Amino acid sequence: MSDKIDAALETVFGANSELYQGRGFQRRIGWGAKPALLVIDMANAWTRPDHAFSCLGMDEIIPAHEALLDAFRAKGLPIIYTTTAYEVIDGAVTDAGLWHKKIPAEVLSAGSPAVAIDERIAPQPGEIVITKKRASGFHGTPLAGMLRAAGVDTVVITGVTASACVRNSCEDAIADGFRTIVVREAVGDRIAGAVAWNLFDIDAKFGDVEPLEAVLDHLRRNDF
Amino acid sequence: MSDKIDAALETVFGANSELYQGRGFQRRIGWGAKPALLVIDMANAWTRPDHAFSCLGMDEIIPAHEALLDAFRAKGLPIIYTTTAYEVIDGAVTDAGLWHKKIPAEVLSAGSPAVAIDERIAPQPGEIVITKKRASGFHGTPLAGMLRAAGVDTVVITGVTASACVRNSCEDAIADGFRTIVVREAVGDRIAGAVAWNLFDIDAKFGDVEPLEAVLDHLRRNDF
Amino acid sequence: MSDKIDAALETVFGANSELYQGRGFQRRIGWGAKPALLVIDMANAWTRPDHAFSCLGMDEIIPAHEALLDAFRAKGLPIIYTTTAYEVIDGAVTDAGLWHKKIPAEVLSAGSPAVAIDERIAPQPGEIVITKKRASGFHGTPLAGMLRAAGVDTVVITGVTASACVRNSCEDAIADGFRTIVVREAVGDRIAGAVAWNLFDIDAKFGDVEPLEAVLDHLRRNDF
Amino acid sequence: MSDKIDAALETVFGANSELYQGRGFQRRIGWGAKPALLVIDMANAWTRPDHAFSCLGMDEIIPAHEALLDAFRAKGLPIIYTTTAYEVIDGAVTDAGLWHKKIPAEVLSAGSPAVAIDERIAPQPGEIVITKKRASGFHGTPLAGMLRAAGVDTVVITGVTASACVRNSCEDAIADGFRTIVVREAVGDRIAGAVAWNLFDIDAKFGDVEPLEAVLDHLRRNDF
Repeated sequence: MSDKIDAALETVFGANSELYQGRGFQRRIGWGAKPALLVIDMANAWTRPDHAFSCLGMDEIIPAHEALLDAFRAKGLPIIYTTTAYEVIDGAVTDAGLWHKKIPAEVLSAGSPAVAIDERIAPQPGEIVITKKRASGFHGTPLAGMLRAAGVDTVVITGVTASACVRNSCEDAIADGFRTIVVREAVGDRIAGAVAWNLFDIDAKFGDVEPLEAVLDHLRRNDF
Repeated sequence: MSDKIDAALETVFGANSELYQGRGFQRRIGWGAKPALLVIDMANAWTRPDHAFSCLGMDEIIPAHEALLDAFRAKGLPIIYTTTAYEVIDGAVTDAGLWHKKIPAEVLSAGSPAVAIDERIAPQPGEIVITKKRASGFHGTPLAGMLRAAGVDTVVITGVTASACVRNSCEDAIADGFRTIVVREAVGDRIAGAVAWNLFDIDAKFGDVEPLEAVLDHLRRNDF
Repeated sequence: MSDKIDAALETVFGANSELYQGRGFQRRIGWGAKPALLVIDMANAWTRPDHAFSCLGMDEIIPAHEALLDAFRAKGLPIIYTTTAYEVIDGAVTDAGLWHKKIPAEVLSAGSPAVAIDERIAPQPGEIVITKKRASGFHGTPLAGMLRAAGVDTVVITGVTASACVRNSCEDAIADGFRTIVVREAVGDRIAGAVAWNLFDIDAKFGDVEPLEAVLDHLRRNDF
Repeated sequence: MSDKIDAALETVFGANSELYQGRGFQRRIGWGAKPALLVIDMANAWTRPDHAFSCLGMDEIIPAHEALLDAFRAKGLPIIYTTTAYEVIDGAVTDAGLWHKKIPAEVLSAGSPAVAIDERIAPQPGEIVITKKRASGFHGTPLAGMLRAAGVDTVVITGVTASACVRNSCEDAIADGFRTIVVREAVGDRIAGAVAWNLFDIDAKFGDVEPLEAVLDHLRRNDF
């Protein structure tokens, strides 16, 4: 069914793009001088099967991350990972806030293997993993200040899910003054259509959705 | 075409909802003790025809707002409007940040009629209009602190667009610790399908999407 | 010397208070319905001798915390601790941002005993320790959203240092919409005069500075 | 009395500086590549006599601002002003949040001459005035994103008051990843001692406090 919905969506995206371009949306934000890679929630609960949070498409998404991580490391550019995990769900106060009232946050226990970054694309020494509590990698974390302090002006965003943490991170990235680029082949979700419609909305308004090869090519051809 | 895409989307939403419910998503967050109404960007540039930002469906959306505003005013509950407007686009620094590099922010001049709230649903004395610069009503505004100071624990969100300012406001509302409720008939957009897929994502993860009548009924039946 | 400077400060505070009260500053914000205790940076690097961050006055400050923790626990009210610690100082990006360019952040290694909460006032199961990266307990953390989600409207702030993390947390607490109360005997610093002048500024503009006994009495006399 | 307290403070600052330097505080953060000028609350309520918010020392502070504004304009560098003003104090919700419960925020009416920038140092076309609601120029405003989008990495901060809006803006500036420099002769307050003790705390931990001539000299000698 996913193919069928994607085909229907492509048709509507065509008409919508025409409207957007006639009105001045879908502009290209482009690259700045210094990009960082922001890998959203590529932890086992999302990348491995049989979890409440498991996502589709890892056969393509994991290799895309391997290529991107290699390219950023080769240039010495900043790489930041996020995961989502909670210390306390039941208590006088919870770090989940209200989110467990909408999603199964209670299975994301801090310190458990489920919330560790997938070892196939594990962080190397010196690469920071931010444990966030909300959908956005920026909201309630020191990320924006860290990136500004490092002179970063462009954030390349990957990971899962398109319909929550990736999208919300893109919205915050541009709001916080960073050029935002999303790598099409490196973004996933767990439901049919959600990658397509969220990347469509992101590309129209919040960041440039680019193919993996274009991103790798930019990194290869430039010094930073 | 909008009907056709909405029909295709309804089919995929059905399958997706089954997956979500099996996994513990799409939970109901429900009402707290004190709601506020947050009216997103119901200014002329969005509610009237022939603007770059013009949205569809105002024949239904404006009356839905009239009913909601009456209900909140009848109970003396807080009402906050937002609009989006810019002082300076070309200059050493712009309050648009980078957003004009994706969308036609340059037509949203501060002080122009385009960014004034539609007079059909105009704010009354004592109702605050926040001029925001980003998609979210919370990002870069004092909104969260204002609501907490007023004892608000629930935010009822309406307005435009589903694919940007309404959605991003919902994401931030729950992240900032407020129960989030979106009124289905009071949300619009300018492209086909975008109301449907964004309300679907919101209802799965960020806030309860409820019919207008259910919201009005809750307000009528309770004291605050 | 500390006594001498405090005496000089008391004189000037007297005159300043007269000016402030004549102009409408130094108002009392008072208690709301549901307080939380926010214990700032009472970790070994601050509470024990011979660290770069060591503070004075722990003979009074630790017992004051014991009394407050008992009182909050007796009522089942939320307690949140903060500490400050860093993963990476030298690297393409650091979670210290720029702060290590002003203070010796490099000695606050994440996971080291220095940044663990002092065991004399250790958190109990279900009490969350937020590892912050900046001075404020709110900036770049999920604290405000957690407190709002828990229905908290009042934050009782203690710990160290008066001239940085305690003060900045007070400024953010009221800005984020929480009634702010600071417990005089439970706040410390490492330099002469800094507790006095910062509590003076806080009491004038950001929160009520109250004696320990008044805070304990309020907790004893009320149900929450 | 102000001279007497300042003399007493200078003595204690000497001893405190020795401790700080022995422990690795009071480091120099220095200039980055692109500074912006952030002028805090130099509006009539603060710069003119006979207001609740009136500050001391304008005979020196106004000329210091004139010199700084000239220097930033000569280099085409960004200049941002803030003021503090409120739409509604009494109502179901107020943009003052809780701050009017500590300070006389009710006299700072939006649109009144009191909250307009002093015409002696008025903004020129293209220079943005942010109307903030809290002490910090960053909290609840789009400032950080605007600065980052403009490529700014250093914020030169001036204005009033040392004990509230200037200090809190410095704390947030470095937390948000900007090098922070405060101009000693361009900062004021309304009570004795407050400029001295707040600049001392800022210089120890949050930003470099520099003499006007050093700042002007840096601007003259460099291209940006």
